[in-house]
Amino acid sequence: MTGKFISFEGPDGAGKTSVIKAIVDRLADVKLANQVVLTREPGGTPIGEAIRDLLLSSKSVDMDGWTEAYLFAASRRQHVVEKIKPALKSNQIVICDRFVDSSVAYQGQGRQLGFDQIWELNQAAVGDCLPDLTFVLDLPIEEGLQRIAQHRTDQINRLDEETLTFYQRVRQGFLKQAQRDPQRIVVVNASQELTAVVKNVWHQMAERWPELKNEDA
Amino acid sequence: MTGKFISFEGPDGAGKTSVIKAIVDRLADVKLANQVVLTREPGGTPIGEAIRDLLLSSKSVDMDGWTEAYLFAASRRQHVVEKIKPALKSNQIVICDRFVDSSVAYQGQGRQLGFDQIWELNQAAVGDCLPDLTFVLDLPIEEGLQRIAQHRTDQINRLDEETLTFYQRVRQGFLKQAQRDPQRIVVVNASQELTAVVKNVWHQMAERWPELKNEDA
Repeated sequence: MTGKFISFEGPDGAGKTSVIKAIVDRLADVKLANQVVLTREPGGTPIGEAIRDLLLSSKSVDMDGWTEAYLFAASRRQHVVEKIKPALKSNQIVICDRFVDSSVAYQGQGRQLGFDQIWELNQAAVGDCLPDLTFVLDLPIEEGLQRIAQHRTDQINRLDEETLTFYQRVRQGFLKQAQRDPQRIVVVNASQELTAVVKNVWHQMAERWPELKNEDA
Repeated sequence: MTGKFISFEGPDGAGKTSVIKAIVDRLADVKLANQVVLTREPGGTPIGEAIRDLLLSSKSVDMDGWTEAYLFAASRRQHVVEKIKPALKSNQIVICDRFVDSSVAYQGQGRQLGFDQIWELNQAAVGDCLPDLTFVLDLPIEEGLQRIAQHRTDQINRLDEETLTFYQRVRQGFLKQAQRDPQRIVVVNASQELTAVVKNVWHQMAERWPELKNEDA
């Protein structure tokens, strides 16, 4: 595979959407906009979006943690086979809002199903298709939850109803993943101003892929 | 758990529905109708039925085999936690149309994802909740497909479009499971007349649970 695969991870409220948007703009600045494939998990394919609807549905409040973990893995497998791998083969730059590290952090560590167990469960879904570069947008959980409360009072979904302790475990899950795979995962301080976060992310990308340095980086 | 958990397995066309119906009648004869919980997979719960719809939808023709395997496991986990275990705890007789052996036979052996891999994948879904008794209704695949063609010309679904070779592997998958776990799994010759099949199944049940012998068995 010759493309680039970049995932963004972190809790809701860490600024993933804004950072991704800014990075796509930077890629446009260096004339790479037409190679960008922007996608997300759960979702990214028609089957994946149907699974996403089921996961986020208010009818699913009684969903067991393992049911949830299997559904995320099902969505991921379809995403990898139908969208990510073909895009990488066509030399595209795949930018994914959440990938396997979210499952390990949320289901494995947050819901305490087991860090290694969830990693194992996802092996058949991911195969050899891990991101080249993963950014974990990290910030104190109170800060993330405050940002959610400000911006999304009308959009509280099932996952937002979990406790502070849950979010604390999720954060530790992301940091543990980063410790285990420092070659792939970069932890970024997401408490900084957006411009500083974007600068940091872009710098890491340009270090990895010198062709991104073409312009004003 | 004090109830009884019985699953029926085998290909479409083996007569599972008719046999289950007859067994429920026999349970009524021995005054146990009010303890019977009749259920099926995929499905059995609201979340499971939503997953079933997704699996059988004609929109899902491009579904990857592993996506399918994860979805079956997701449905199963919810089924076990929300319906089967509580019923067994309340001393009910759970009769399930397909369970974990179908995943191993269809995804593991039929779709060649690996017999052991699919068994492993389902461990978190099943936990300690295996059936007490599983009946594999076995018959030559041509016979099963012929019965489907006669009875269901208007109901051809995605799974029915697979090849003869696929069904041959599925049959071998069921028989291999039975060889591995002869204490739990009984292979029944489903080429016989329905009454003979039912007699055989009921005999095995009454051997296992003498209280079923109360009447005319």
